[in-house]
Amino acid sequence: MPARAYTDAAWFTLEMERLFAQMWVAAGRADQLPAAGAFVRRNVAGASVLIVRAPDGSIKAFHNVCRHRGTQLCLEHDGTFHGSIQCPYHAWTYGLDGRLLAAPQMDDVAGFDRAAYPLRPVACDTWDGHIFINLSDSPPPLASQLGELPARFAPWQMDRLRLARRIEYDVATNWKLVVQNYNECLHCPVIHPLLNRMHHYLGAENVPSADTYCGGAMGFKDGIETLSTDGKRRRAILPGLTARDREQVSYFAIYPNFLLTLHPDYMMTITIWPQDCGRTTLVAEWHFDPDEMAKKGFVFEDAVEFWDRTNREDWAISEQSYLGISSRGYQPGPYSERERQLWEFDQFIVSRTGHPSTPLKLPT
Amino acid sequence: MPARAYTDAAWFTLEMERLFAQMWVAAGRADQLPAAGAFVRRNVAGASVLIVRAPDGSIKAFHNVCRHRGTQLCLEHDGTFHGSIQCPYHAWTYGLDGRLLAAPQMDDVAGFDRAAYPLRPVACDTWDGHIFINLSDSPPPLASQLGELPARFAPWQMDRLRLARRIEYDVATNWKLVVQNYNECLHCPVIHPLLNRMHHYLGAENVPSADTYCGGAMGFKDGIETLSTDGKRRRAILPGLTARDREQVSYFAIYPNFLLTLHPDYMMTITIWPQDCGRTTLVAEWHFDPDEMAKKGFVFEDAVEFWDRTNREDWAISEQSYLGISSRGYQPGPYSERERQLWEFDQFIVSRTGHPSTPLKLPT
Amino acid sequence: MPARAYTDAAWFTLEMERLFAQMWVAAGRADQLPAAGAFVRRNVAGASVLIVRAPDGSIKAFHNVCRHRGTQLCLEHDGTFHGSIQCPYHAWTYGLDGRLLAAPQMDDVAGFDRAAYPLRPVACDTWDGHIFINLSDSPPPLASQLGELPARFAPWQMDRLRLARRIEYDVATNWKLVVQNYNECLHCPVIHPLLNRMHHYLGAENVPSADTYCGGAMGFKDGIETLSTDGKRRRAILPGLTARDREQVSYFAIYPNFLLTLHPDYMMTITIWPQDCGRTTLVAEWHFDPDEMAKKGFVFEDAVEFWDRTNREDWAISEQSYLGISSRGYQPGPYSERERQLWEFDQFIVSRTGHPSTPLKLPT
Repeated sequence: MPARAYTDAAWFTLEMERLFAQMWVAAGRADQLPAAGAFVRRNVAGASVLIVRAPDGSIKAFHNVCRHRGTQLCLEHDGTFHGSIQCPYHAWTYGLDGRLLAAPQMDDVAGFDRAAYPLRPVACDTWDGHIFINLSDSPPPLASQLGELPARFAPWQMDRLRLARRIEYDVATNWKLVVQNYNECLHCPVIHPLLNRMHHYLGAENVPSADTYCGGAMGFKDGIETLSTDGKRRRAILPGLTARDREQVSYFAIYPNFLLTLHPDYMMTITIWPQDCGRTTLVAEWHFDPDEMAKKGFVFEDAVEFWDRTNREDWAISEQSYLGISSRGYQPGPYSERERQLWEFDQFIVSRTGHPSTPLKLPT
Repeated sequence: MPARAYTDAAWFTLEMERLFAQMWVAAGRADQLPAAGAFVRRNVAGASVLIVRAPDGSIKAFHNVCRHRGTQLCLEHDGTFHGSIQCPYHAWTYGLDGRLLAAPQMDDVAGFDRAAYPLRPVACDTWDGHIFINLSDSPPPLASQLGELPARFAPWQMDRLRLARRIEYDVATNWKLVVQNYNECLHCPVIHPLLNRMHHYLGAENVPSADTYCGGAMGFKDGIETLSTDGKRRRAILPGLTARDREQVSYFAIYPNFLLTLHPDYMMTITIWPQDCGRTTLVAEWHFDPDEMAKKGFVFEDAVEFWDRTNREDWAISEQSYLGISSRGYQPGPYSERERQLWEFDQFIVSRTGHPSTPLKLPT
Repeated sequence: MPARAYTDAAWFTLEMERLFAQMWVAAGRADQLPAAGAFVRRNVAGASVLIVRAPDGSIKAFHNVCRHRGTQLCLEHDGTFHGSIQCPYHAWTYGLDGRLLAAPQMDDVAGFDRAAYPLRPVACDTWDGHIFINLSDSPPPLASQLGELPARFAPWQMDRLRLARRIEYDVATNWKLVVQNYNECLHCPVIHPLLNRMHHYLGAENVPSADTYCGGAMGFKDGIETLSTDGKRRRAILPGLTARDREQVSYFAIYPNFLLTLHPDYMMTITIWPQDCGRTTLVAEWHFDPDEMAKKGFVFEDAVEFWDRTNREDWAISEQSYLGISSRGYQPGPYSERERQLWEFDQFIVSRTGHPSTPLKLPT
């Protein structure tokens, strides 16, 4: 892709409109909303969105904006609403389902109808515990974006897993360079000395890419049981896994913002939150089997430390990549066959943004 | 008003050109310039302006820019020039009336006429001690902007009052949200627990709005004597006030940048200095009767502390308001009848900026 | 020049394209690259450039961008490459002459030719030890930009001199105001009390300006031997100087970014690195005769301290100048005859940028 796909603010705006405001965006886990009123707040494509557990157990999402004078209702990152959501400016009060319950001084206004001013809804759906939101007024079904992934990962019973650790990274790079970095392991011997002891870097077996995701699995080297600081596995294998999945890690990038990494004994998720052309917030979370978590002596630091180190190696080279691509001297270079998924991602970006672009080169 | 009236840099520029560079802007008090040479510096609409007490006692204003190479003459916020104003670069020297007195090396230049290079003047006028400046080349009289206010407030003898305290606030909001917040008290029970013990929040009696200002008065609740931390009055009532004005506070917003709040025993002024769409500097000053100030045991902290707390409550909600209005999910909402002054202010903005705009809704 | 020449981001971009990306830019000294593999990194006009001593002793310059995925190859400001330059992402490896030596995984790609992907070269040349780079694809000879300067300064044998001290300044001004400040000494009595004890501020004897540089010499006042904190000279006079050059300082501005100041016993260079309209990085370096440097008791702090103080005086007034020119009240003013070099520089800027401009005034 040309440099401007990474450095031009207009291109970034277009990506936010055409990708992040129209596709389903991964936004957290249902277990982070344990009871009615629990909420998380997410900022995406210029929107501030409240994701709330409703009293009926469903998960709803709303724009975090009062219908009266536009005040942001809630400044907290997460927390619990007690029965209703009240604007701190003039006390307009909404139910956990978004209905306007009270609007002081407005009831005397001729023609004012509370039913006309609920919180503006945002589409929200879940897949095996993963919450997705969609800012479009008429979103396609979430299933259409996930394709065959729900079937593929059903054995993992991901909805059972529970969060143990969350780390947020502020990275000086374009969000697409994070996806491209995730989609190939040619850099592993150079960048990741520890990871490279676990996998053979050419060992990926990728599934045919779909329009909205790509990925594959990499087997372990001899003696390696999972990805941890020493390659040892300190937790039981997740129930239901095939023999194959017990000896490999699955890596899937689900566009535009979800990196799903599944190990024999745990799940790591990374959600991608573009801030501007050259700044991206990344949220990594580690999820485990609750039966294991309940055991005396449960540990998870080996998995967190392994990936925290590996992630930081990736963020650093992605920042260095952004510096070069931002330079006057940059010209797009050739991909190898091992970088086919990057070429496919480039095609995805160009087809969605509809931007004129210099032709992309794929080695034949 | 649509979101872009608050968040679009082009709209902000237009407001600076059409409002702040063409209207009279409140810029301080004459008692802050006690003697010849005393000056204050003000930045408004991209201009840096020196306001100076001239030897003849008049107050003059000049662009703070040397006519030679454009150097900013003075970096200080306030101070005293001793007889003349000298550029620190090449020593061009100006009188306190702006005339160029000396220009080293230039007198030999054929055709150079010192009289052609005075400091560029800025229109300056005062109303009862309030200094106003106007960046326009042909400003209308200050009186046309003030309308009936000089007559209304003549009994206050505001020119007698003297500054006791100044607090500057840096607020992350659009300047118009500060005016709108000032112009209604529906939020008082929610935001201002202390103020709400002093006034009944529905008790405002507004005068009919003029084109360039709006305002009204609010009476005290029983037992309240003025706005202070405990509602007690610790200074004599200002001489000349009517019985009515002894039991209420007048609140006037004089567009574009002056909030004038008159209590039985003191005056608070707030001047508004927009920095960009989302950042505004606010300068609050408390002014008292000099006869009171001369008395042993004079105190004013009760009034300052009351308003400092109340002001900060207003600035915080105005920032939260700006966050919501800046969000993708914002849509303009309905006003109640109690928010008529906001609707009028919106009309003022739209008519002056001449910007196309979504229609504004006023409840009928 | 109109205010927009200093404050308009579009004008700045044009200057970077037409001046800094097309002219020869001073980029350091050859003695800073003592052996094969030694490098410095320079950022100019959006490019990151590596300047490297090749094994054959020549100096080469390359864009600091990998030809594979655009990664910035090197983040260090200076250092030494050991035999080759390797990209830290996928280990593409280049020779010190820029040739691509290894590209893992690419050799299997049909049609891939390593010879087609060398580091992109940047033109590089030297003049008596001064390194210049040129980002243009077809640069004119360096000699055409230097005109009669190599002949004029041959007696100085500048290639013999060696760096003793480097100070980097981050200045909040437009780069052109630094050049204009350097090009006149009318400000010396006002701004530089120490320097003004050394030179008579009207004593400059300027050479006729060329298209790409201007300058002249200023003699010392009685009793002054060189520019140092006390006017005393603590080092031998440089060999080869004329009687005249032993009693004066030469000041030359070589556009766009080089200020060359030659004293009887040392050389000070300042390179100018524009960051944006209102921010400029300045690198001052002090260079001495290596024979003197080898002597016991060699000192140079007197020269560094003198100029560090004088430079900071210049940077401060250049910042104040930028503030005034950025103000709404700025209008271009008249030059005196002593500011002719500034007028010529203005003409240079306008002719190169080809920007429409208000007419420039030169006193006749």
